Amino acid sequence: MNEPRTGVPRRGLMLVLSSPSGTGKTTIARALLEADPAVEMSVSVTSRAPRNGEVDGKDYTFVTADEFAAMRERDEFLEWALVFDNFYGTPQKPVEEALSSGRDVLFDIDWQGASKLRDREEKQNRADLVTIFLLPPSASALEDRLKERAQDPEDVVRRRMAGASNEIQHWDAYDYVVVNRDVEASLAAVRAILEAERHKRDRQVGLTDFVGVLQRDLQHDL
Amino acid sequence: MNEPRTGVPRRGLMLVLSSPSGTGKTTIARALLEADPAVEMSVSVTSRAPRNGEVDGKDYTFVTADEFAAMRERDEFLEWALVFDNFYGTPQKPVEEALSSGRDVLFDIDWQGASKLRDREEKQNRADLVTIFLLPPSASALEDRLKERAQDPEDVVRRRMAGASNEIQHWDAYDYVVVNRDVEASLAAVRAILEAERHKRDRQVGLTDFVGVLQRDLQHDL
Repeated sequence: MNEPRTGVPRRGLMLVLSSPSGTGKTTIARALLEADPAVEMSVSVTSRAPRNGEVDGKDYTFVTADEFAAMRERDEFLEWALVFDNFYGTPQKPVEEALSSGRDVLFDIDWQGASKLRDREEKQNRADLVTIFLLPPSASALEDRLKERAQDPEDVVRRRMAGASNEIQHWDAYDYVVVNRDVEASLAAVRAILEAERHKRDRQVGLTDFVGVLQRDLQHDL
Repeated sequence: MNEPRTGVPRRGLMLVLSSPSGTGKTTIARALLEADPAVEMSVSVTSRAPRNGEVDGKDYTFVTADEFAAMRERDEFLEWALVFDNFYGTPQKPVEEALSSGRDVLFDIDWQGASKLRDREEKQNRADLVTIFLLPPSASALEDRLKERAQDPEDVVRRRMAGASNEIQHWDAYDYVVVNRDVEASLAAVRAILEAERHKRDRQVGLTDFVGVLQRDLQHDL
């Protein structure tokens, strides 16, 4: 079992990063994946057609609508959603494999996806989920990002701002909140959260054995 | 209000560091205080006489047994204990002042002190407490440290080992566990825990206002 840093076998965790678009989430997610080899991205399954340059199994796992329906029937998704006639879902199996071998899985999902993961965790009485909400430092910073990035007509920017405002409403369902004033500082905060959560007693599934050996050796030398 | 790193007014936290003696706790506590100006040490009140070089108000606040009893009567202690005929207690007022101005307080206390703080928190329905247990990497490493440091007769080392074994029994009441294989890595882990806990949604008491302004500005520009 993988034991990065903690030195004691541990169960991985599911790290959810949500934010309104234009907050810098993708930049931080990419930097985290690059900086920390124990973290992998959850690859969603979708029934939509691949776009230019998208790689099957990396950007998405592409399936037909029928295949998607069959996976749903078999309860193979942690969560799924229908967006503009296309299905998107998070497959359960690769996540469980990662967690049980001590690797962490990063989810770049919105408040609805996060909410579904939370419900599922609660039902199954698990504690694998760690959720972070990323906030923009100000409305004007968010608007600048959206305008700059989009080069889109005014009404597209407007729609995105409305979407951002809607997403922000759900900040208070998250465990942690990071205000992204500075990418470096926010990345450091996300990495600190990950490092801290790995040191949670309950995640270090090897601790009971470790302390058992420690106590036995101490008693022996007494 | 102090806002180190988070950028949003926050309530400080009570960081408890416990470990068997000989695990390197004091080294890590000192390094943490040096590295992070937002953390201060809780200064205990004691009825015992000052020892050589001890500074009143820094190492301890020295009081008479009668003064200690009066403070106890007035419920001024977060926790207190009688050790070898001397009273030791953690005064509540300076801790509350630190927390409400966004500074963190470090407690170098054993499992019994930690347990009393936990009980008090629960009764008062608070969530200011963050507890870390530091484990030695092995029994032999612990023994080496105790022998090296003590230069004491065999039976003193033995008694300390028995004390260590007793303290270790309580590891599983703590939020976080750090195995101290390496001082630098352990200090980094403790700092990550502190940084992460500061980003907990509930500690950032200024977030509701912050998001309120953000939403108002977004609506205005829509």
